[in-house]
Amino acid sequence: MTSVRVAVAGASGYTGAELVRLLSQHPHVQLTAVTSEKSAGAAISAVYPHLQGIVPLSFEALAPEALTERADVLFLALPHTKSMDPVASGLKAGKRVVDLSADFRLKDPGTYETWYQTAHAHPQLIKDAVYGLPELHRSAIKQTRLVASPGCYPTAAILQLAPLIAHGLVAADSIVIDAKSGISGAGRSPALPYHFPEAHESLEPYKIGQHRHIPEIEQELTGLVGTRTQATRGEVAPVTVAFTPHLVPMNRGILSTAYARMKGQLDIAELRTLYRDFYKGERFVRLLEGAMPNPRHVRGANYCDIAVHLDRRAGWVVTVAAIDNLIKGAAGQAIQAMNLMLGYPEETGLVAPGIYP
Amino acid sequence: MTSVRVAVAGASGYTGAELVRLLSQHPHVQLTAVTSEKSAGAAISAVYPHLQGIVPLSFEALAPEALTERADVLFLALPHTKSMDPVASGLKAGKRVVDLSADFRLKDPGTYETWYQTAHAHPQLIKDAVYGLPELHRSAIKQTRLVASPGCYPTAAILQLAPLIAHGLVAADSIVIDAKSGISGAGRSPALPYHFPEAHESLEPYKIGQHRHIPEIEQELTGLVGTRTQATRGEVAPVTVAFTPHLVPMNRGILSTAYARMKGQLDIAELRTLYRDFYKGERFVRLLEGAMPNPRHVRGANYCDIAVHLDRRAGWVVTVAAIDNLIKGAAGQAIQAMNLMLGYPEETGLVAPGIYP
Amino acid sequence: MTSVRVAVAGASGYTGAELVRLLSQHPHVQLTAVTSEKSAGAAISAVYPHLQGIVPLSFEALAPEALTERADVLFLALPHTKSMDPVASGLKAGKRVVDLSADFRLKDPGTYETWYQTAHAHPQLIKDAVYGLPELHRSAIKQTRLVASPGCYPTAAILQLAPLIAHGLVAADSIVIDAKSGISGAGRSPALPYHFPEAHESLEPYKIGQHRHIPEIEQELTGLVGTRTQATRGEVAPVTVAFTPHLVPMNRGILSTAYARMKGQLDIAELRTLYRDFYKGERFVRLLEGAMPNPRHVRGANYCDIAVHLDRRAGWVVTVAAIDNLIKGAAGQAIQAMNLMLGYPEETGLVAPGIYP
Amino acid sequence: MTSVRVAVAGASGYTGAELVRLLSQHPHVQLTAVTSEKSAGAAISAVYPHLQGIVPLSFEALAPEALTERADVLFLALPHTKSMDPVASGLKAGKRVVDLSADFRLKDPGTYETWYQTAHAHPQLIKDAVYGLPELHRSAIKQTRLVASPGCYPTAAILQLAPLIAHGLVAADSIVIDAKSGISGAGRSPALPYHFPEAHESLEPYKIGQHRHIPEIEQELTGLVGTRTQATRGEVAPVTVAFTPHLVPMNRGILSTAYARMKGQLDIAELRTLYRDFYKGERFVRLLEGAMPNPRHVRGANYCDIAVHLDRRAGWVVTVAAIDNLIKGAAGQAIQAMNLMLGYPEETGLVAPGIYP
Repeated sequence: MTSVRVAVAGASGYTGAELVRLLSQHPHVQLTAVTSEKSAGAAISAVYPHLQGIVPLSFEALAPEALTERADVLFLALPHTKSMDPVASGLKAGKRVVDLSADFRLKDPGTYETWYQTAHAHPQLIKDAVYGLPELHRSAIKQTRLVASPGCYPTAAILQLAPLIAHGLVAADSIVIDAKSGISGAGRSPALPYHFPEAHESLEPYKIGQHRHIPEIEQELTGLVGTRTQATRGEVAPVTVAFTPHLVPMNRGILSTAYARMKGQLDIAELRTLYRDFYKGERFVRLLEGAMPNPRHVRGANYCDIAVHLDRRAGWVVTVAAIDNLIKGAAGQAIQAMNLMLGYPEETGLVAPGIYP
Repeated sequence: MTSVRVAVAGASGYTGAELVRLLSQHPHVQLTAVTSEKSAGAAISAVYPHLQGIVPLSFEALAPEALTERADVLFLALPHTKSMDPVASGLKAGKRVVDLSADFRLKDPGTYETWYQTAHAHPQLIKDAVYGLPELHRSAIKQTRLVASPGCYPTAAILQLAPLIAHGLVAADSIVIDAKSGISGAGRSPALPYHFPEAHESLEPYKIGQHRHIPEIEQELTGLVGTRTQATRGEVAPVTVAFTPHLVPMNRGILSTAYARMKGQLDIAELRTLYRDFYKGERFVRLLEGAMPNPRHVRGANYCDIAVHLDRRAGWVVTVAAIDNLIKGAAGQAIQAMNLMLGYPEETGLVAPGIYP
Repeated sequence: MTSVRVAVAGASGYTGAELVRLLSQHPHVQLTAVTSEKSAGAAISAVYPHLQGIVPLSFEALAPEALTERADVLFLALPHTKSMDPVASGLKAGKRVVDLSADFRLKDPGTYETWYQTAHAHPQLIKDAVYGLPELHRSAIKQTRLVASPGCYPTAAILQLAPLIAHGLVAADSIVIDAKSGISGAGRSPALPYHFPEAHESLEPYKIGQHRHIPEIEQELTGLVGTRTQATRGEVAPVTVAFTPHLVPMNRGILSTAYARMKGQLDIAELRTLYRDFYKGERFVRLLEGAMPNPRHVRGANYCDIAVHLDRRAGWVVTVAAIDNLIKGAAGQAIQAMNLMLGYPEETGLVAPGIYP
Repeated sequence: MTSVRVAVAGASGYTGAELVRLLSQHPHVQLTAVTSEKSAGAAISAVYPHLQGIVPLSFEALAPEALTERADVLFLALPHTKSMDPVASGLKAGKRVVDLSADFRLKDPGTYETWYQTAHAHPQLIKDAVYGLPELHRSAIKQTRLVASPGCYPTAAILQLAPLIAHGLVAADSIVIDAKSGISGAGRSPALPYHFPEAHESLEPYKIGQHRHIPEIEQELTGLVGTRTQATRGEVAPVTVAFTPHLVPMNRGILSTAYARMKGQLDIAELRTLYRDFYKGERFVRLLEGAMPNPRHVRGANYCDIAVHLDRRAGWVVTVAAIDNLIKGAAGQAIQAMNLMLGYPEETGLVAPGIYP
């Protein structure tokens, strides 16, 4: 199989560095460029000593046109609002682009403007973007040149709730997502909340009801409403979620605990069967029945572990999902999408088991 | 002011040791005995070197009658179901008892039997027990000889939700409590889930919808329903909660995030005023508006920090509470109750600020 | 006993905040001012929410003359080289000063200049300063108006080695001090090495052989050489140490492991007797024989725990010391010195046991 | 290249599970059996959920003869003293054996008996065993059928000191090794010192001067004395070390700080050249000059990172080494040896970069 030239823009952040690490082990990938404004000129191994002896590249400043000449696929791990122009450049040059920012995730430019406080610079390109969750949009990913790779929280939240929503088993306005993230999710720029003595022996919610991942969760779940029922879709209400992220004193991992009020009586065995059917054949979704999802079981791996529980006494379905925020929640999922776009087996370069403990 | 002789049964666990630590600094307390079956005969400073030079006592085995001879007040930090007989002994000897187990918290012996799988040995004593949350039951605590000190999760959950429930502002069947605890909450007995390499870089829910703290949360909240409204109490439904505790990789602290569906439109400023009124004059409840409750702000202190947030878009009131599980969630609150029982100023021995970081 | 007015300059750092926390509980202290350039104007409880309800002060910018009008004792928790002028101002105004920087610790201005890259601004005041380690300099501290409070590493290192050096039992050029510190020792300013994901699951030495605490360790140990032997002092060599500090992923605490080559044969029982004699009556030095010194046993307390081990096979005395870097290593020790200066019982305000776990 | 059938005995411990994880990704290995007395009958993925979907095996009880029928290579990750018989069985059956216990590391059965309190059951096999540190014994490993894989602490200590000892640059009786380990090094059996609330915010030395890794460090370093000098070996003294291991609150990793008194004047540039020459061509030794060795740079990787520092003022060479205790300190190194024994490229299955953060 021929190899593909790949560039990573924004490679000095944790997500970018994780892309580099994983791509360096991908059998069909030739890494040709890594960019960083802050560290331009430095060897990546000077900034990330764990890559010494593995990745011989140095950072360069981002120059979209120059970059596209040396790459067939562009990964953009840039801050929100900074990806719009590079995406347009990449597409114009005929390249495939996997954008890990939020810039092309929301189908409605108005919603984007509301949550990101910026008018979208290339709204006409949004329709070409596919939300890069392979478990829901595999066919579309295979055919697109622009993947909008999902946020870390949404990956867990959407996957854990999708079967319930698609089957119409829970009330669309009853959903509570209480999510917890390791601190690498906040990026590599030092700031007081992430200063070790502040973040250690510490636990704190933030942006209650205001986190920017909310609209993509609601968009994707609403798109699923009743798709596996007999109901006419027009009848069903949009999904709204109460979403609270928390910072937890660990490096990696997201644990998402989601609550949804059950409609009618449900049975746990039937629920589990329904989840198994929904995720049948999925390489990177593991449904746990004995063990509980826990970030420690997916650390360094591309899995999303999910468990379903039923609190019949109080009337709630409680689902739990765990991912590695930097892998299935970012770099791994983006590579999974690239594999689909390029026709490689979906798991190529992503089969390493997590490390434990 | 005269001093009081105090014994602590079950002093080799973390809660018991914390009682000893705090009582050793209480100006009116003379510690006369500490018990431990496992460590009987050993100096407490050999088992807990932080107490070397501070507490000269040695552990003895628990002999309730002998103990009551040497103490005016008994603190029982024994496992659930093991407190029933010692409580009866203590009361029979005319002593005051603060029981930190669940044995006398539930008013309905049937509920106790359902959740603790044991018939209650002294059901006739239950009516004399006062649920030891001073912010809700101060007068009754002053007059009782038996305090059933609350669980750690319920302390946070009840205090953060009480004003909403009492004012009838939220739907009684809509409540989700997503609670997170440091690992000292699991006690000092080693077991695989608490083994450092398993619990570190780890995050896991447990006993979803099945934790034994659920019935006391529901009992206390149901008791508050509509008490501050004009509604006839008979009309209102009992409170049921979806409750999920999580183990978080930190030593101390509980953070409780609670969601309740708002009835009608609410306003955040009004909500905060209502909380301020509800907790007016309370020494150990701090309402935060700028900062977020975080266990790191109460580590080593007897405070419960609470913040109220409103997600009007999705229709939820989200409250956050933080306590030190071993202090306001256990030992500190128990001493607060003792102070009330004995007529000492409520904060005696409990004013030390938390340590930070 | 009358109370004393106290001001803390540099109170927004961890050491300053710890001074404030401890002084707020001191029965004879009235806190009158706290300074911070960065947070001037803000309530201290806004910057440190753990102090809400405890310390009602707001930060002000440092104006030495104005400060001395409102305080009888000044604590200076300022960066190295920034204390020289405020010390001079305080002394000139007739106040007592406890300086927690290094500016007056070294007796030789040339040594100061070598290690701190700055000429000393007030070399004539150095002779008035007493190195504030009460266990070695109690009498002098009682009589001085300027205490140069020791660094955190030196406190542990000097106390653990002092008996060996004073008795001439080890080779003066054989000493290795391998010290490990929690990350609060690096202060509260965010920077990459202290960013949670970098500092967690991480362990690193720094400034090998170049840390500025080296000269004060050598000065104090050299001052002790042979003081408890029959030898003529002139014969003995100055002490030099190989000193390596490490950053350990915990918030608080220093553990110092020191190695010294034994001269002649030693016996462990004799060594321990010698340590007991040396520290007889010391309230804040605990000699452990069963347990091992560990920062967790002194967290939040003013103790220095020490243990002595003998590796006769290889010929080394190995001593271990643990302190809370912010208490016995900084704020607590400074208050201990203040108590001595003012004639209060040495342990006033410092008797709180550590918190565990 | 043909594949080889491999069995892992003692696969339910952390080292064994790490062997399974790494071997499952080795292109030439077919895992045929995993043993565990405690978990016999259970799926390995039930005991280690991170392996779900990756390793389909179940544990069986150890039956050496039965095992050898199904494997060409045996890895023994059994407790010290429990490997002697299985090694003998494996060799008798004509298999290759990599023993990760200490049972065949020491060349002198008397030394073994002294440190392990057990007479050696098969002393005649000791001479056939090769100490499995490829960087020192590559040729011998290629030709043996029994590899005694090094302990985790010795791997770091020997590699960081070898060039100094071989070149005779430091005093053989001056060596201090202050080593720090993550808690996975203590294994997976719960016990109080490894209980999360005890081990977190905690730091403690143990077995000062008495750890069983001491004799293998001294054996290997003594074997190197002066081998790269002109001196007659007979003249040089055996190496003795002061060795103190510490438990650090992190999951994985060893950091070893070693001090050796320099003989004569040394120059840091010359020292670094000497290290570069010594480790020239070594795939898994990285010499750092800018960055400092830190377990976070080797987490999940087979590297030993080393840095050399010179404290000329005090007269010491200070070297620092970092490894992942479960990989280069155990499972990875054992596989490295297997690759050599079987003629595979030495790095086969071991090239994955570490994960960061």
